[in-house]
Amino acid sequence: MPIKLGDLAARFDCKLVGDPDLAVDNVAGLQNAGPSSLSFLSNPRFRKQLAATRAAAVVLRAEDVDESPVASLVSENPYADYARMAGVIHPPTTYPAGIDASAVISPSAKVSPSAHIAAHVSIGHRSTIGENAYVGPGTVIGPDCIIADDCRLIANVTLVRNVSLGLRGILHPGVVIGADGFGNAMTQDGWIKVPQLGGVRIGNDVEIGANTTVDCGAIEDTVIEDGVRIDNLCIIAHNVHVGAHTAMAAMTGISGSTTIGKRCLFAGKSGAVGHITICDDVVISGKAVVSKDITEPGVYAASFTAEPAREWSRKVARFRRLDQLVERIRKLEKAGE
Amino acid sequence: MPIKLGDLAARFDCKLVGDPDLAVDNVAGLQNAGPSSLSFLSNPRFRKQLAATRAAAVVLRAEDVDESPVASLVSENPYADYARMAGVIHPPTTYPAGIDASAVISPSAKVSPSAHIAAHVSIGHRSTIGENAYVGPGTVIGPDCIIADDCRLIANVTLVRNVSLGLRGILHPGVVIGADGFGNAMTQDGWIKVPQLGGVRIGNDVEIGANTTVDCGAIEDTVIEDGVRIDNLCIIAHNVHVGAHTAMAAMTGISGSTTIGKRCLFAGKSGAVGHITICDDVVISGKAVVSKDITEPGVYAASFTAEPAREWSRKVARFRRLDQLVERIRKLEKAGE
Amino acid sequence: MPIKLGDLAARFDCKLVGDPDLAVDNVAGLQNAGPSSLSFLSNPRFRKQLAATRAAAVVLRAEDVDESPVASLVSENPYADYARMAGVIHPPTTYPAGIDASAVISPSAKVSPSAHIAAHVSIGHRSTIGENAYVGPGTVIGPDCIIADDCRLIANVTLVRNVSLGLRGILHPGVVIGADGFGNAMTQDGWIKVPQLGGVRIGNDVEIGANTTVDCGAIEDTVIEDGVRIDNLCIIAHNVHVGAHTAMAAMTGISGSTTIGKRCLFAGKSGAVGHITICDDVVISGKAVVSKDITEPGVYAASFTAEPAREWSRKVARFRRLDQLVERIRKLEKAGE
Repeated sequence: MPIKLGDLAARFDCKLVGDPDLAVDNVAGLQNAGPSSLSFLSNPRFRKQLAATRAAAVVLRAEDVDESPVASLVSENPYADYARMAGVIHPPTTYPAGIDASAVISPSAKVSPSAHIAAHVSIGHRSTIGENAYVGPGTVIGPDCIIADDCRLIANVTLVRNVSLGLRGILHPGVVIGADGFGNAMTQDGWIKVPQLGGVRIGNDVEIGANTTVDCGAIEDTVIEDGVRIDNLCIIAHNVHVGAHTAMAAMTGISGSTTIGKRCLFAGKSGAVGHITICDDVVISGKAVVSKDITEPGVYAASFTAEPAREWSRKVARFRRLDQLVERIRKLEKAGE
Repeated sequence: MPIKLGDLAARFDCKLVGDPDLAVDNVAGLQNAGPSSLSFLSNPRFRKQLAATRAAAVVLRAEDVDESPVASLVSENPYADYARMAGVIHPPTTYPAGIDASAVISPSAKVSPSAHIAAHVSIGHRSTIGENAYVGPGTVIGPDCIIADDCRLIANVTLVRNVSLGLRGILHPGVVIGADGFGNAMTQDGWIKVPQLGGVRIGNDVEIGANTTVDCGAIEDTVIEDGVRIDNLCIIAHNVHVGAHTAMAAMTGISGSTTIGKRCLFAGKSGAVGHITICDDVVISGKAVVSKDITEPGVYAASFTAEPAREWSRKVARFRRLDQLVERIRKLEKAGE
Repeated sequence: MPIKLGDLAARFDCKLVGDPDLAVDNVAGLQNAGPSSLSFLSNPRFRKQLAATRAAAVVLRAEDVDESPVASLVSENPYADYARMAGVIHPPTTYPAGIDASAVISPSAKVSPSAHIAAHVSIGHRSTIGENAYVGPGTVIGPDCIIADDCRLIANVTLVRNVSLGLRGILHPGVVIGADGFGNAMTQDGWIKVPQLGGVRIGNDVEIGANTTVDCGAIEDTVIEDGVRIDNLCIIAHNVHVGAHTAMAAMTGISGSTTIGKRCLFAGKSGAVGHITICDDVVISGKAVVSKDITEPGVYAASFTAEPAREWSRKVARFRRLDQLVERIRKLEKAGE
């Protein structure tokens, strides 16, 4: 949708340096932008691309205005303002209200007349679908689920039972919410399944990535607070509590009954063992797994970066012989006494 | 379902300390239990919650009876007995026999009249579905599969072809069994696909977590023995053999043709490389990956725990300079000769 | 399908040592092969099984012919030639052309008359399905997708929108292509979603394993070149570019905007952080994550192998006290001055 720079500046409270009547109708990276593109500069690593851009306008910080060869929309948070503007220029697809003839919906379910229920959806007993919700093809919603207004379940999502999803939630394909947690009791005859009886409560404005799983609680509920963002292929085990605005990158795994604070960041392939508490504002580096309570905000790490295998092997060999090294030092110390 | 403590004690052979006519109708954790709740104390870390519980009764060990302010069901394995009792108080949902009108079933498939086939299920040629089996919405069962009696395929499960699942198996949503293994032969023109021709044989009482994948064998079958428990987002590659009662926590990965013994435990994010053998009763710690045969039962480990990033970085720097350390020791030794 | 050894030798240009009229009708490993089986010897670790095989014939290298008790098909690349021959003996299942009555297809979609569209498939606006394509049960193809000729989407696959898949592509169950990338901008009020507007372009002869996800680009497309092989449970994040004939084993994770060269190999659980470039012909060992550009072909590593926990703990304790070790060496050096 074409929009004038002056209108964007007014709507998002950015200072415009340039022609307010110039219109943009698409977004693009600095290098590929054309004469009707809006672009942005947020990460300083791309600053060198600014001088050559052919965009109509660039959203950027005040300190970068002088380097811009084109119109500037000045922002203290260019990435966020770009995101907002991109949402205006490329508005999300809307779907007509209604229920596809192939959907199978329990007579006790309540579906808002403004919701879109796509092909091959099934909705279980007593579940409710809110206004303007989008339930994409192949999605299975079991019994006793609540999908609040404006949610989008993209496709092939599964909510097993007793899951509530807050306003504007987005669940990507293959997401599974409310499957049984991994509860097993050992006996002399093998494992016994521990009934998983809780549900899952998810706050407002939560987005969960493709093929991620969030298990139901064993007795009480698994809880994800408002504004949480979870990437693809993560697991949130039973009875985990994730604080508001925490974000987890792909392949993060949180074991059962762990409580995570607000505004935490988990990098890719990171995680936490079960039954621990992590305070607010903690950052876990890639691949690091937390194994005890964290009570101080800050960055936590535990991984090595890849290096040429020969060099790595030599270091590992040294590491394996640390005992011998200590012994040699001990001898030297003794000799020096 | 309400049940009297005396009946629970008799049925599960626990000594009751308290009023046999008191009834429970729900289960709850020690802290949240109410006057009709059954609770349990297994993990000593929760012992301090016992004194304040308002449960009707607590399943616990003999040594904890004196600390309980309420009725006690005395057990040598409180977690297992709690699990059994919870299954009585909260019996699993049952489903009416029958086939949803939207299901698409091959004329050569055989479905037990007591099975429940939900919406949008498809069942391929020559496959059979046993008595009282539950095949949840969106599940795809390809050709030549056998689903034994009392299995539960929760929803959106995929069995590709030639998969047999033993009695009482539970497959959670997004599970994929029998997809082609990762078999590729390099040539000068790129990869050639190696046909994956085997099936998957799964024993009785196996439970597999959401979005886990078990590949078919390349030539012979991939095998999972009785009583195995696999959590979410694991991979069992082609021709793996998993011994009875082994359990794998989330994100475990077992590479092709590896054989795993009975009663092994794989913690979260752990795994094994291909073409190795791991004996019975082995425990693999979180994140550890086994890279050669294990012939002795015991605990195996290979990971560091997260710590403040500054401290971690200093240790990594030291690790990277171990060579220099060795050199300095060598010099000191030489000087001392 | 039975075929004579002479015909196999002629068709795949292998020297035959043995009776050209002997026929094989199945493939098997050396140990389980019977009198009408074709087997192969590629990995030297199985050489000792050759002498006892009861196969009809074995595909093997010239150097192994003398050890074979049965007919030999001599090849410079026995694994690849076995793969080709296995594809003749066990040809892939074919499916009749046509569209299942339960499929829901947009009037603006174009489906080749020779394609097979299975039960409960949905196909979105303007998408096209090529000749002889197989779209398995439960698959969701969103709008603006292109499925080229001879592709096979096994079952329950999801292509969200704007995905193109080249000739002969194979997508296993649970694969999700084109879901939104993990793009979030932090503000004082929490995360803002950054619109993900690009698509995914996949070349010819690409195979993607069960439950793997490939996200759409943020602005430009995510790209996977010809001949790439990706195993189960991997993530390819937004705007990643994977070079031709690169292969990734299970649980590999590639973060956003990273560019990977041709013919790279990623072992299981490996990966790369975002915004880096990896050159052609790089091998990443299991569990290793690359955190900066790689400009030299070769093998890169970063992980420890599992060992008995007690030994591992002792090493970790030493590692944690490296600072003290350095201090002791410093003292010794000072004393020696």
